[in-house]
Amino acid sequence: MLRYINVRSSQRSEFIDITEKINEVIKEAGIVSGICYVYVPHTTAAVTINEGADPSVHRDIQNALTRLVPQEMNYSHREGNADAHIKSSIIGTSQLLIIDEGRLVLGTWQAVYFCEFDGPRHRRVTLKLIADK
Amino acid sequence: MLRYINVRSSQRSEFIDITEKINEVIKEAGIVSGICYVYVPHTTAAVTINEGADPSVHRDIQNALTRLVPQEMNYSHREGNADAHIKSSIIGTSQLLIIDEGRLVLGTWQAVYFCEFDGPRHRRVTLKLIADK
Amino acid sequence: MLRYINVRSSQRSEFIDITEKINEVIKEAGIVSGICYVYVPHTTAAVTINEGADPSVHRDIQNALTRLVPQEMNYSHREGNADAHIKSSIIGTSQLLIIDEGRLVLGTWQAVYFCEFDGPRHRRVTLKLIADK
Repeated sequence: MLRYINVRSSQRSEFIDITEKINEVIKEAGIVSGICYVYVPHTTAAVTINEGADPSVHRDIQNALTRLVPQEMNYSHREGNADAHIKSSIIGTSQLLIIDEGRLVLGTWQAVYFCEFDGPRHRRVTLKLIADK
Repeated sequence: MLRYINVRSSQRSEFIDITEKINEVIKEAGIVSGICYVYVPHTTAAVTINEGADPSVHRDIQNALTRLVPQEMNYSHREGNADAHIKSSIIGTSQLLIIDEGRLVLGTWQAVYFCEFDGPRHRRVTLKLIADK
Repeated sequence: MLRYINVRSSQRSEFIDITEKINEVIKEAGIVSGICYVYVPHTTAAVTINEGADPSVHRDIQNALTRLVPQEMNYSHREGNADAHIKSSIIGTSQLLIIDEGRLVLGTWQAVYFCEFDGPRHRRVTLKLIADK
């Protein structure tokens, strides 16, 4: 089944923890074990899994990406967000997650982050949930 | 079910839009809703999802990757394509896509690109289609 | 079904070929065709698919990542492994693989590598195996 999560970013570059929102959707759907595909239908955003405990980690990831792919360069794309498109392809627009015991199976320190690279904006994340047979 | 798409690149670095080829395979297979795994069985190529409307976007992505990972450096691998292997791991060799209403579910601006990093060559992309129960 | 592979790294940065370990798990599970999700539940490690024949390739990938994301920079995260977190998000913590004829479907030169970025450590890789209907 398909479900949607709405995300609102407030900065140009921002990682937003959507782990609990996904767990709520899984709970409402009543899925005990299966798969959850997290899909970002945007070309200047992405989704990654990384440390959720210390927010300095996702700031470091954002800073590293901006150092490697600066906003201002001699890009062909003239909308001022070529960097955001490039970051999107480097990080990727989907993640696959395992559902067990009615929740996402994540490592101790892992959280799922929506990666905004061209905010602030309203964004949508698509979830495809598949229950085990 | 497994299906294959043939891709022919004409440059060393080239992004080739395979969205409609995938949609044709889905249509022929008669799958209305499910999952489509796009898998690249090559080590110097990749697959990404990014903007399909303005071709300058995928040129910017290729240029950024080449700036970060130049073809000529002191690589250990002596076949002249170490950069292509590195780009392949940065972008990734697979994408998962959702099928709904007989077509890929993509955002408004999204297209699926086969990423050639060591062309020109003939390449093959593997699709695994899984219909919902 | 969920299965686990144990990995022991002996260096800070190290790519470990886990292809045959995964094939053994598939064989023991008796799955002939389906899907295998490879999931790394760690935030300073990743999983990638790249050339298995020449070990210089994965050394080049590691060196390129270290050149782009050095261990020592002005990171906010104070545990000395911010670089490993960043590399983990660039490469990604999961791969999806196709199972056919009782084995992983890989290209001629492909192998599945567990990517250690903050070793040496004991690590675990989660596999979710789904047989075709």
